[in-house]
Amino acid sequence: MRTNNLTLHTDKYQINMMYAHWIHGTHRERAVFDVYFRKLPFGNGFAVCAGLERVTDYIQNLRFGEEELAFLAEQEEQYQPAFLEELRRFKFTGDLYAMPEGTLVFPGEPLIRVEAPVFEAQLIETAVLNFVNYQTLVATKAARIKQVAGQDSLLEFGTRRAQEADAAVWGARAAYIVGFDATSNLRAGMMFGIPAKGTHAHAWVQSHDSEEEAFLRYAEALPDQVTLLVDTYDTLRSGVPNAIRAARELEARGKRLQAIRLDSGDLTYLSVKARELLDAEGLPDVKILASNDLDENIILNLKAQGAKIDAWGIGTQLITAADQPALGGVYKLVARAKGDAYMPVIKISGNPEKVTTPGVKEVYRIINKQTGKAEADYIALKEETDVKEGKRIKLFDPTHPYIHKFVEDYEAALLLQPVFQSGELVAELPTLEQIRTYHRQQLALFWPEYLRKLNPASYPVDLSITAWELKRGLIEQHQV
Amino acid sequence: MRTNNLTLHTDKYQINMMYAHWIHGTHRERAVFDVYFRKLPFGNGFAVCAGLERVTDYIQNLRFGEEELAFLAEQEEQYQPAFLEELRRFKFTGDLYAMPEGTLVFPGEPLIRVEAPVFEAQLIETAVLNFVNYQTLVATKAARIKQVAGQDSLLEFGTRRAQEADAAVWGARAAYIVGFDATSNLRAGMMFGIPAKGTHAHAWVQSHDSEEEAFLRYAEALPDQVTLLVDTYDTLRSGVPNAIRAARELEARGKRLQAIRLDSGDLTYLSVKARELLDAEGLPDVKILASNDLDENIILNLKAQGAKIDAWGIGTQLITAADQPALGGVYKLVARAKGDAYMPVIKISGNPEKVTTPGVKEVYRIINKQTGKAEADYIALKEETDVKEGKRIKLFDPTHPYIHKFVEDYEAALLLQPVFQSGELVAELPTLEQIRTYHRQQLALFWPEYLRKLNPASYPVDLSITAWELKRGLIEQHQV
Repeated sequence: MRTNNLTLHTDKYQINMMYAHWIHGTHRERAVFDVYFRKLPFGNGFAVCAGLERVTDYIQNLRFGEEELAFLAEQEEQYQPAFLEELRRFKFTGDLYAMPEGTLVFPGEPLIRVEAPVFEAQLIETAVLNFVNYQTLVATKAARIKQVAGQDSLLEFGTRRAQEADAAVWGARAAYIVGFDATSNLRAGMMFGIPAKGTHAHAWVQSHDSEEEAFLRYAEALPDQVTLLVDTYDTLRSGVPNAIRAARELEARGKRLQAIRLDSGDLTYLSVKARELLDAEGLPDVKILASNDLDENIILNLKAQGAKIDAWGIGTQLITAADQPALGGVYKLVARAKGDAYMPVIKISGNPEKVTTPGVKEVYRIINKQTGKAEADYIALKEETDVKEGKRIKLFDPTHPYIHKFVEDYEAALLLQPVFQSGELVAELPTLEQIRTYHRQQLALFWPEYLRKLNPASYPVDLSITAWELKRGLIEQHQV
Repeated sequence: MRTNNLTLHTDKYQINMMYAHWIHGTHRERAVFDVYFRKLPFGNGFAVCAGLERVTDYIQNLRFGEEELAFLAEQEEQYQPAFLEELRRFKFTGDLYAMPEGTLVFPGEPLIRVEAPVFEAQLIETAVLNFVNYQTLVATKAARIKQVAGQDSLLEFGTRRAQEADAAVWGARAAYIVGFDATSNLRAGMMFGIPAKGTHAHAWVQSHDSEEEAFLRYAEALPDQVTLLVDTYDTLRSGVPNAIRAARELEARGKRLQAIRLDSGDLTYLSVKARELLDAEGLPDVKILASNDLDENIILNLKAQGAKIDAWGIGTQLITAADQPALGGVYKLVARAKGDAYMPVIKISGNPEKVTTPGVKEVYRIINKQTGKAEADYIALKEETDVKEGKRIKLFDPTHPYIHKFVEDYEAALLLQPVFQSGELVAELPTLEQIRTYHRQQLALFWPEYLRKLNPASYPVDLSITAWELKRGLIEQHQV
């Protein structure tokens, strides 16, 4: 019943469209799709692109096995056997361009561009969105938490509340790339090399006749890694005093208590009092770790209240992105082959931000050479040369074109990098540590007003004049 | 890098506690854990238990492979090699009792009880919670949607917004057990036998020179399964008229257009107008399917406004349970072996509902023999016989004990069923169709006031006098 093959991790309508194209002989016609989102999550000023490693692995392993083909043969659509034979030979032969994981990204700009036979481009839509939507969402949530936590340790503790097993590991990875220090999930540790950390549960304490005995026995078994959970019975009256006893025992063996963990109650009050108790006993190096449904807003408030917390265990709110548990990333057709060239296409909507931006486009990050800071992202048609050559360009807001300025003396960083060419992986994927470094460099590119957690300034994502006029023209053409 | 082995789908602290128990030789001591949640999600009056099939499969496949052992050998804890050998021999040997999937469940009652060596019981905690929390959450959300949709068709369309791949398939299954009709996810169709359904995307229309051509070609390729998406350009001015043309073509071939799909705009207005256009053309059998970020509240409002919608495609709001994306299910130690007997244990908290209910307990659904309706759930210690023998029992609210009544002439349905005994699977798991039938029977057991979507009455979950006094006694004992 279990299957590791993700080829059918797709919506049935993709197969139906593939079939209809195949019936009409149009399945090898090339099409261009953009992946982008329309609105930033959590009221944040940016999102953090993530999911590419998962996408890459998925595309490389995309094959219809016998079980998949047998299942499709039984569907009510009664696909012709020759179609199933076509699927048996399936392999991705297209091109895929993507922003590196860890890139700061903004609404309306393509995170991924797929250029492939429509047959292949349709199949991968659902999975690509599923991966990129979730990982980008969690990376963005984690970046908000990291911003508030500063140099404090951040531990991802969400597995038991994650939305099933895959979310636990890919969510842990997304948190790590933006600066979390560790995860409690061992499978994520094994799959990705993320440091795995753990303390003990209330059950450990309850499994002993006294809390003191439980602490001493834990310290005896794992003398180098002792963080004691102090809230099973009474944090200040029993938990912290017993932890101090355990610290003394450890000292006698030349070891030290690393931390205590608070998991309930008033974290400000308890951390301040626990800090006093520990300091009074000459244990200023014992850290205080807090957990219990924390998010960036609670952490900010606890810090403002003077809580004495050194490390944060973050569960539910991060791993489910609880305040907005889905990123609305979409995958839209922007051009299709017409003879030897691509013809731009548009999707109209009564809802203006749902109108697609037609054409094969690149995204450039325009960096001011004087300040070293990003001024705007600039979306131009692939063939436009001005921006590549560093010529003077006009930056203007596509929804309010009168707001504009001209820039020159800039560096234009091309954000979409080739990942697959003619079905072959051409990118060398970075290590997690390289992604972390790159993400920190990305943050340094932006003025702080774009990075604020609350009411950030809106970073400009502009269209080139050519891209804008193409869009206007197609809108008019469809409004007859 | 990919791993199908879920043995390390756990928190590191479980391994650390297993290690500490092993170091002290207490790892084979038996412990009893309850899985339960404290608060109903979405303000609903009940939750729907789900996740058992996944749990069963997980436990049967629980083995530390070489990759897992090699990873653990490298951890900073420096576990002794003999511990890793113990893990190499690991297999679940305990007992597990669980409520059948589809059961209506309430706060504070055990959905699962694990009786096993503490070494084994700790390992499985994280995964069991991960599976049961997510599937119970989605099944409950889906039950709310089903209640509002009545006999309309319900299609699960959430994969692209699901929190990664596992959530897509297990969420689709959770929706199906409470009465959804189909899913768009083909992998869920293949894994579980859920009917898979699909239409086409905007990209199909954009891939053709006109909407009319796109519709006609789609109908030609899949003449028996035609649902046409009519909002790519203009729903009423082009989409519906072109769909009517396609319906005519299909009629000429002895086929019929099944449905049109609305995916944006004012669904009430568009569905009413589309219905008029279809009816005026003699096409009253063509159904109208709506999608676009729907949930139970929007469906209720659309129906109240007179929308003419026959079928609903539900995505993001269901698959992420967006209004509350985590169920706070917990796994708490309630007893441990002390000599030949189990000794009940408690976890105290300043937060009264976080105090655990000690002891090895059964859950009985007390059904009034006159009305055939459930009166209350009754949690008693396993050894209590009065309720098993149908004797007069006192039902009282544990937080407000003065609210009470006595019942007799009842049937006491034992909700926790044996699933594993001494590590062997002893239950025959029901098919999905059996679970759907059972779930409908469960709904029929309850008075409507408990099932309401908004402001439901609170269904009583009562403790036996013995269970209540045990709890009070242990609380007093710890409050010295």
